[in-house]
Amino acid sequence: MDIVIIGGVASGAKAAAKVKRLLPHANVKIYTDDTHVSYSSCGLPYYIQGNFSDYTSLLVRSPEEFKSSGIDVFLQSKVDKILPEQKDILVSVACKSELVHYDKLIIATGARPIRPEIAGINDYENIFTLRKIEDGINIREKMLNSKKAVIVGGGYIGIELLEAFSRNGVYTELFEQSSQIMPSIDYEMSEIIKNRLNSIENKNFGLHTDTVITEFIGENGVLTGVKASDGKEYECEIAVVCAGVRPNVELANEAGIEIGETGAIKVNKLMRTSIENIFACGDCAEKTHIVSGKKVWIPLGSTANKEGRCAAMNVAGIYCEFEGVLGSMVTRCLNTTIAMTGLTEKEAQKIGFKPVSVIVNKYDKVAYMPDTGEISLKVVADKITGLLLGAQAVGSIGADKRVNTVTSGLIGHLTVEEFSKNDLTYSPAYSPTIDPLLNAMQILCKKTARSC
Amino acid sequence: MDIVIIGGVASGAKAAAKVKRLLPHANVKIYTDDTHVSYSSCGLPYYIQGNFSDYTSLLVRSPEEFKSSGIDVFLQSKVDKILPEQKDILVSVACKSELVHYDKLIIATGARPIRPEIAGINDYENIFTLRKIEDGINIREKMLNSKKAVIVGGGYIGIELLEAFSRNGVYTELFEQSSQIMPSIDYEMSEIIKNRLNSIENKNFGLHTDTVITEFIGENGVLTGVKASDGKEYECEIAVVCAGVRPNVELANEAGIEIGETGAIKVNKLMRTSIENIFACGDCAEKTHIVSGKKVWIPLGSTANKEGRCAAMNVAGIYCEFEGVLGSMVTRCLNTTIAMTGLTEKEAQKIGFKPVSVIVNKYDKVAYMPDTGEISLKVVADKITGLLLGAQAVGSIGADKRVNTVTSGLIGHLTVEEFSKNDLTYSPAYSPTIDPLLNAMQILCKKTARSC
Repeated sequence: MDIVIIGGVASGAKAAAKVKRLLPHANVKIYTDDTHVSYSSCGLPYYIQGNFSDYTSLLVRSPEEFKSSGIDVFLQSKVDKILPEQKDILVSVACKSELVHYDKLIIATGARPIRPEIAGINDYENIFTLRKIEDGINIREKMLNSKKAVIVGGGYIGIELLEAFSRNGVYTELFEQSSQIMPSIDYEMSEIIKNRLNSIENKNFGLHTDTVITEFIGENGVLTGVKASDGKEYECEIAVVCAGVRPNVELANEAGIEIGETGAIKVNKLMRTSIENIFACGDCAEKTHIVSGKKVWIPLGSTANKEGRCAAMNVAGIYCEFEGVLGSMVTRCLNTTIAMTGLTEKEAQKIGFKPVSVIVNKYDKVAYMPDTGEISLKVVADKITGLLLGAQAVGSIGADKRVNTVTSGLIGHLTVEEFSKNDLTYSPAYSPTIDPLLNAMQILCKKTARSC
Repeated sequence: MDIVIIGGVASGAKAAAKVKRLLPHANVKIYTDDTHVSYSSCGLPYYIQGNFSDYTSLLVRSPEEFKSSGIDVFLQSKVDKILPEQKDILVSVACKSELVHYDKLIIATGARPIRPEIAGINDYENIFTLRKIEDGINIREKMLNSKKAVIVGGGYIGIELLEAFSRNGVYTELFEQSSQIMPSIDYEMSEIIKNRLNSIENKNFGLHTDTVITEFIGENGVLTGVKASDGKEYECEIAVVCAGVRPNVELANEAGIEIGETGAIKVNKLMRTSIENIFACGDCAEKTHIVSGKKVWIPLGSTANKEGRCAAMNVAGIYCEFEGVLGSMVTRCLNTTIAMTGLTEKEAQKIGFKPVSVIVNKYDKVAYMPDTGEISLKVVADKITGLLLGAQAVGSIGADKRVNTVTSGLIGHLTVEEFSKNDLTYSPAYSPTIDPLLNAMQILCKKTARSC
């Protein structure tokens, strides 16, 4: 049995390893145009920051490890075509094209950074995007020789790089075209992030929302600054464009595989695409949101791993459903942890819920304890049914704990009333007597149509 | 309307404040034999440690604050009798007895430390128990003038004091009569605690399980050491007996109020006792375990607050049910966080479940990140139904996050299979790509009778 996997970062690598364990006699091959396979791209901002010195720490499994477990990895091997009728793929390796047969094909082509059409974006060597290991190596090298940086985009990667640059003493201007840092969360919560970051003493960065870069400027192919829509020019020796990603679906699309409404490859719960014997997983695949039941495209490493595992099981003939995602995420920028799960209020509204919400601002521990931090916690529920829809938290590291506590409530489709019966752990070193999450639920309960 | 509350530490103070807000015209009176009212006794070990310098930080509301909100607080006022037929209580204030009328009575008499019958236990001034603010002040003062200490009992308070003494440079021997530190958790988990604590470099303490103190020894009323069942003598200048607590139910019992099978005051979900117009809440009251449905007595400050609030609401005529507890707890000893929720395997077995369990030992973050710690996580489920029963975690601070994530799963009565669909937050700085909790659930799923 020939099992071919296109792409090998997270879901592809996971699928390969899993399917080989389940079907030891199968021929498992990974084709990727990348120079590396099986690595943690989520760790790149921390490599750039210098949290660890060797980028090889990011490698989960080396090509040699794959080889020794009987999996063939073909690096820098671009797949040009999928030919479903003959069950072949067409691969370019070193200027030579060859057909490779598959019995089962797993598409794990991932996503790629969006490069917006900004004047000069392709004219200078020191404008980067961050996706692959080389990107991380190149950005770190350039950062270490820079005094001023520009980041275009205030999502996860943008703010993670802001931390990295700031901690390395590089003065950084971050530009976000929307009116908020972290556009995926609700506006009031993003304002809290902005205020926390702006309150850092002697901060060496500037945050610009509602501002776009209109032009990259430089000399002799070397970037020297940017022009922004605020009419000003900002000097910089390095710019990183973090304007989001889009799924790599061209190969699937050309092969006649159905693309979903989100623009990613349509898959069922078994990670099967619309064409038999072809599966898709990871950042190139569409997901189902467990709370809304809607199709979404939320590309994340943790999801990619689960989908890769699930695809592998089904390829091996073991029934496995991947239920979907809650859109749970956590990240950090300097003094601020940002976490969320489920639907934001604006998403809930758009989908057709009648959302009610509450924001509480509380200490993360009992106030008399040392190192007590603050947490702002927003919880969203449906007014009519009382159903818990989501939570967002900004503040100390404890923000992450509260959001994870909500994830299980969403999986269980709990109402706010049910959730407010929760018995959370308490000790002065870990939380206030009544946890902020329960404060929030008690208030929110009164806003729903159910009595609490 | 006369509302009388006996006891004013956590649930009593909470109930008083809440009922006065709901019924501003009621006469609300708190009687307590304590010298303080409304304080965080859970914070005493951290006061002793010196995490904050002023014990008044532990006071939630002062008697003056109560007074200004129209609540009368009678300190050092022992209630001698409850007379339900005439709706009076008999109070001793400064050698004078007086009858005080109530329309509604809330019993919040709390619990008191057990003093085991050990030879010499009442003969020396420097043998303490820890419950009230004076205890904390006295222990801290004595600790600061001691080089060697003995702690009798290895539960929460015992290990919290071990941290306090150790951090203050006092060499401490801790004795636990059972075979494990933290007897409330499963044995294997307690072994992990012991190993972590014993692995601390240059540790200034000794841990003795299966060992009892047979005699306190001293001279002229001053303790100088203990004799232990290992046949050895241990010198010390201070000893703290942390041998557990028992509920203060004598007053209720004498008044004919029903005492539950656990030895605490029997209450229904509305915090009503068996006698009309009398409520009980906090550490003196029995609780229902949400997972097992059984009566339990797990005295904790967070529960006391919730019960106080619930009792107050029902006193005020607003229907409020207190569903029960999960037995969730967290504490810390030096390098080790210990958290649990739900049933342990041994409890589950005893109750009649057919428990299956798994222990995973994992990093709390992606291994390449700085300050990555380790977590040991035990999850327990019922083999037949697949129902999640409980979780215990020992290790870095991240242990607390995983246990809280499980609490909501227990409230939702999720199976392991359902829980394993969870979408937890992921970032290299916060968790591995696949969280230890999901690793554990995946393994546990296979041990249940349900396919996963």
